[in-house]
Amino acid sequence: MHSKSTRPAVILLSGGLDSYTAAAMVRAQGFDLFALTVRYGQRHSVELEAARRVARALDVARHVELDVDLSAFGGSSLTSNDPVPKDRVIESTEIPSTYVPARNTVFLSLALGWAEVLGARDLVVGVNVLDYSGYPDCRPAFIAAFEDLASVATAAGVGGARFQIHAPLIQMSKAQIIRTGLSLGLDYGLTHSCYDPSPTGAPCRRCDSCVLRAAGFADAGAIDPLIGS
Amino acid sequence: MHSKSTRPAVILLSGGLDSYTAAAMVRAQGFDLFALTVRYGQRHSVELEAARRVARALDVARHVELDVDLSAFGGSSLTSNDPVPKDRVIESTEIPSTYVPARNTVFLSLALGWAEVLGARDLVVGVNVLDYSGYPDCRPAFIAAFEDLASVATAAGVGGARFQIHAPLIQMSKAQIIRTGLSLGLDYGLTHSCYDPSPTGAPCRRCDSCVLRAAGFADAGAIDPLIGS
Repeated sequence: MHSKSTRPAVILLSGGLDSYTAAAMVRAQGFDLFALTVRYGQRHSVELEAARRVARALDVARHVELDVDLSAFGGSSLTSNDPVPKDRVIESTEIPSTYVPARNTVFLSLALGWAEVLGARDLVVGVNVLDYSGYPDCRPAFIAAFEDLASVATAAGVGGARFQIHAPLIQMSKAQIIRTGLSLGLDYGLTHSCYDPSPTGAPCRRCDSCVLRAAGFADAGAIDPLIGS
Repeated sequence: MHSKSTRPAVILLSGGLDSYTAAAMVRAQGFDLFALTVRYGQRHSVELEAARRVARALDVARHVELDVDLSAFGGSSLTSNDPVPKDRVIESTEIPSTYVPARNTVFLSLALGWAEVLGARDLVVGVNVLDYSGYPDCRPAFIAAFEDLASVATAAGVGGARFQIHAPLIQMSKAQIIRTGLSLGLDYGLTHSCYDPSPTGAPCRRCDSCVLRAAGFADAGAIDPLIGS
């Protein structure tokens, strides 16, 4: 136990299970959390409401929601009217249509800008390489390259500071993530994962994200509060 | 001379003299230009109107204007109500208050996302190291680090593609930039450089940007059409 830290960290918070868990893990290390949620042209606001619930539960120092309409560029079923793929074989190494080009690069860049203003040297992101659906910007090589960029891109970096990107989930399975979160007392009923929820916000249970989440809870021997037993 | 190219390049177009010149130089190499202007919380729209004029003059294939309100983070006199510094000694190596944290990182990330959708492998940015006012994200080391990041951040990069960031002005003086643009037939009367224009859009002639521009025209032996003789 130590007294209240004043180490700030900027966390990319989506409202999903992964970023909630990553945030809680970093908070447990003594960081004060500054949460950034980017509204990037999603077709539904359910995810944003989940981000607000999660930010409150995490008792963040500040929560900024920022609009960046990536649908202006097209190129992803998550930012267009293309159908979200269902019932896919997740083992496929093909990059799916839900990939949003350069999304994590854009999000981390925004987090970096805020971090520099705050005097923070720590960014947090809930990316994960094992259960991932083929997104290039969820891999360790991407995280390392962004750390290198951050130290030459900023006034702080020119001054000798080194930014650290915390990606505590990157080598964990979904079941490990869920077990870790439950051990930290997290309420996954606050989160939202589905790419294609019903108008009332209910998960479709067939998109990649729903399928990975269900398998994770099953492997962890836990019950998803969004689904029930 | 060769026939019309179909090589697309995404150019960050601010409405200033530099990005206009960089765009024209790359267009002269046979690229089709896709222009991205980011509205990042500037205090005036004069710059945006200049970007539209310049995009038309360059006959770009498409011009996207995207809102990204960096003022949500604060930290710069360009995105806040802090005064813009005037009559500074430009030789100072101190980073001025007009620095917008991580601005070029954010802008290039957005350009990268659009490039991936377009199938483009070329990004263009008008950064310049010699006349710059101490911005860390205008240096060759930053450009090189971003190229490295782009090749691990994208589906195209994972597939083996290499992105190139064209920064044709990076080692040029302002006078060289102006002479190059004039030789390409550019009309600098379309552009806007001032950080703190009057309500009618007239340049203040005292901020860093106005001072550098005036010195550049003087060194080039040319008359700035915005100012006259």
